[in-house]
Amino acid sequence: MRLRRIAGLLGFAAMAHSPLAAQAPAPGFSPAIRRNVARLIEAAMHDTLGYSRLGFLTDTYGNRLSGSASLEHAIDWALTTMQQDGFDQVHGEPVMVPHWVRGSESVVLNTPRSTRLHLLGLGGSIGTPAAGVTAPVLVVNSFDDLTAHATDARGKIVLFDVPFPTGVLPMEGYRIAVAYRVTGAIAAAKVGAVGALIRSVASFSIQSPHTGSTHYDSTVTPIPIAALSVEDAEMLHRMQNRGQAVSVTLTMQAHTEPDAMSRNTIAEITGSERPDEVVVISGHFDSWDVGQGAMDDGGGALAAWEAVRLMQQLGIHPRRTIRVVLWTNEENGTRGGRAYHDDHRTELANHVAAIESDNGVFRPFGFTFQGSAAGLAKARQLSALLAPIGATRMIRGDAEADVEAMITDGVPGFGLLVDDTRYFWYHHSDADMMTMIDPVDFRKCLATMVVLAYVLGDMPGTLPR
Amino acid sequence: MRLRRIAGLLGFAAMAHSPLAAQAPAPGFSPAIRRNVARLIEAAMHDTLGYSRLGFLTDTYGNRLSGSASLEHAIDWALTTMQQDGFDQVHGEPVMVPHWVRGSESVVLNTPRSTRLHLLGLGGSIGTPAAGVTAPVLVVNSFDDLTAHATDARGKIVLFDVPFPTGVLPMEGYRIAVAYRVTGAIAAAKVGAVGALIRSVASFSIQSPHTGSTHYDSTVTPIPIAALSVEDAEMLHRMQNRGQAVSVTLTMQAHTEPDAMSRNTIAEITGSERPDEVVVISGHFDSWDVGQGAMDDGGGALAAWEAVRLMQQLGIHPRRTIRVVLWTNEENGTRGGRAYHDDHRTELANHVAAIESDNGVFRPFGFTFQGSAAGLAKARQLSALLAPIGATRMIRGDAEADVEAMITDGVPGFGLLVDDTRYFWYHHSDADMMTMIDPVDFRKCLATMVVLAYVLGDMPGTLPR
Repeated sequence: MRLRRIAGLLGFAAMAHSPLAAQAPAPGFSPAIRRNVARLIEAAMHDTLGYSRLGFLTDTYGNRLSGSASLEHAIDWALTTMQQDGFDQVHGEPVMVPHWVRGSESVVLNTPRSTRLHLLGLGGSIGTPAAGVTAPVLVVNSFDDLTAHATDARGKIVLFDVPFPTGVLPMEGYRIAVAYRVTGAIAAAKVGAVGALIRSVASFSIQSPHTGSTHYDSTVTPIPIAALSVEDAEMLHRMQNRGQAVSVTLTMQAHTEPDAMSRNTIAEITGSERPDEVVVISGHFDSWDVGQGAMDDGGGALAAWEAVRLMQQLGIHPRRTIRVVLWTNEENGTRGGRAYHDDHRTELANHVAAIESDNGVFRPFGFTFQGSAAGLAKARQLSALLAPIGATRMIRGDAEADVEAMITDGVPGFGLLVDDTRYFWYHHSDADMMTMIDPVDFRKCLATMVVLAYVLGDMPGTLPR
Repeated sequence: MRLRRIAGLLGFAAMAHSPLAAQAPAPGFSPAIRRNVARLIEAAMHDTLGYSRLGFLTDTYGNRLSGSASLEHAIDWALTTMQQDGFDQVHGEPVMVPHWVRGSESVVLNTPRSTRLHLLGLGGSIGTPAAGVTAPVLVVNSFDDLTAHATDARGKIVLFDVPFPTGVLPMEGYRIAVAYRVTGAIAAAKVGAVGALIRSVASFSIQSPHTGSTHYDSTVTPIPIAALSVEDAEMLHRMQNRGQAVSVTLTMQAHTEPDAMSRNTIAEITGSERPDEVVVISGHFDSWDVGQGAMDDGGGALAAWEAVRLMQQLGIHPRRTIRVVLWTNEENGTRGGRAYHDDHRTELANHVAAIESDNGVFRPFGFTFQGSAAGLAKARQLSALLAPIGATRMIRGDAEADVEAMITDGVPGFGLLVDDTRYFWYHHSDADMMTMIDPVDFRKCLATMVVLAYVLGDMPGTLPR
């Protein structure tokens, strides 16, 4: 998932206790639409296939990093299964994706005692020489702190021990802390460090390191970078504070191979009256190479897919085409979303909306909306139809990364809004497993997604751009 | 820590919202005792040395399994530091302890896909041949389920996927679930299994396996046994449920070496009037070989030690001897507690109480008491002195494992009662780290411990046996 605009987050917080949205009427929808909405909610709240397929996907193929065989095998399975579902236009659309490979990795504390620490290399990092990089550690608590100790950093491994901010919404805390993951290697290299470590970007930890994309730029020589668990980062910081010399050996086989072929997975129900008008409903199918990729974003992808299957099963054929897209390469390139934008550029004027779920399939509250004020006003009328699920919020905020390029071209965007309290407990870690996907929450997300997609596809007009 | 009697737990639950204990008067204590109690609470609530030493101990020596060099080095440091603290009778008392060594270990899923799972071998387990044990997995959800599928178990690795019970107090849930850890290898071997796995005994998991003692008996050939993370156990169970054949390779170098010499670490403040009468205040210094052993039980041990140091620092010399004991080998043998009992047998009639903290230094509620009804009644008068800390509960319940032998001989026992809501999130896992030790909670535990030990040591009479 991507960062939302803070304005949207604050709007969410302000609305959290407002009963207004939930009590708003749902004007202007025909009895037929209302009847279909009720049928879809009923079917979604009793659905078992979506959750079951999510389990099959994540158990059988595991995590699905761009460039991996597991991602492509999972895509093959999805295409075959979508054919069996009876969808129209089932196909993969080719996308060249980055192919980063983790390899084995370790960080060993040498002094003041010898022990193996808990790490995950950051996605896109370079590796170390085979013998690793052995160096003293300089712990800093911010970029400013690094600047203040720049002369101490030369030849060392810099550890950014920056706590996940508390007292703010999780997404805002993430926005602040993730800067060290994204640019920590650049900042450390600028002052002559030979490697960089960050404290995992996590709002809670049980010795669980978290990966995610990191960046280099042309101004410095790349250095390897990895995330320590929160606990281990704090331990090294305490050691430095009490004057114990800290030295580690960081070993990473990480490397980037040539770009690989992947696919956006696409299928649809052809519109019964206006087949050229398209509602995109989506999640991303790739994941990091840890855990199962169940939360980020198997759950979102399967909810989008199952939403379309429920329409099919109930014989509901909206006027417009409902197109499910399981994006590839959200995590480390967003090339799937951009390829779709480029390949479908001429059709985007007829894309009436693009919906994505990528904040986990936790209890849904509604949607963020990215588009015009008039579009938001009309979207708020739709959201009243979600009152039976308790997911009526429709607030201004960024949608998600994969649909961003479309939105830039004017397509109204929706992001599924969920209770993300525990999102950063699991995000990009080995704990992104089926265990933390609640089947009832999954059904509620499915219901929320299918209602929005259906109504946008079947209502008389479209959202103002 | 050990299992408390359920009666005590229920008593605790019933009292949780009762204001009575907190409002009870503290009759029969002299102004001098009340003044010293106030000084000790004040000092404890501003103490920084105890927490700082806990950090130094756990960062510098790490975890401290019986038989390890780290435990003995930590004991050396404690003895030296206690000498510097100016205590009397600082010495180590020899104890022969089991010496189990984990070695490297892994469990690899072979089918339906290849991936490395998250495990911790159980303490006391035998190892596997160097090539490991490769076998199909039979997942069961109880001993009864295993019995029902006994003929399927031969030649397989049995996985007990038994959830940690919810809806009961954590300690009660533990009591139920831990049976599989303790006797799972015996039950699986009885039906011809070649290895056993359990779902980690944990009330919450972030892919974090939990170790702990396991047992064999003379009726079966020992088989290796390890704990999977909750997430991985659930995954294998789902695979079996959907008919996917599950096969793993379990490799463990675990083995038991000859017993090793360790020590109970002992120091005291000699009683000013009745030096032969002794109040034992204690925690255990050994830990499992994972994490830092900060919660289980570095925190309890350091709180006990710091309690005595605070009396020393404030120049408070109780009538009776206050003896701090940092037990060795609580985790896999309880030999420290039994050796103390045997070596001090003739003095136990003059041991007026034995106090231990071994449920983590979370927010304290008071104490469990193990002794006579008359002893409990008098202890409840003492507990009113803990009202400033909010730790006034004094309920019937088992004390802790290390003092059990003494209690059997009539010594009144106290166990520090804390908010153990998250205890089994970290217990016996790599997440038993300083990060989850809250400094304020530590101070409150310290205050609670020091008040009880001081009053028992300085009040005119002793508790009825």
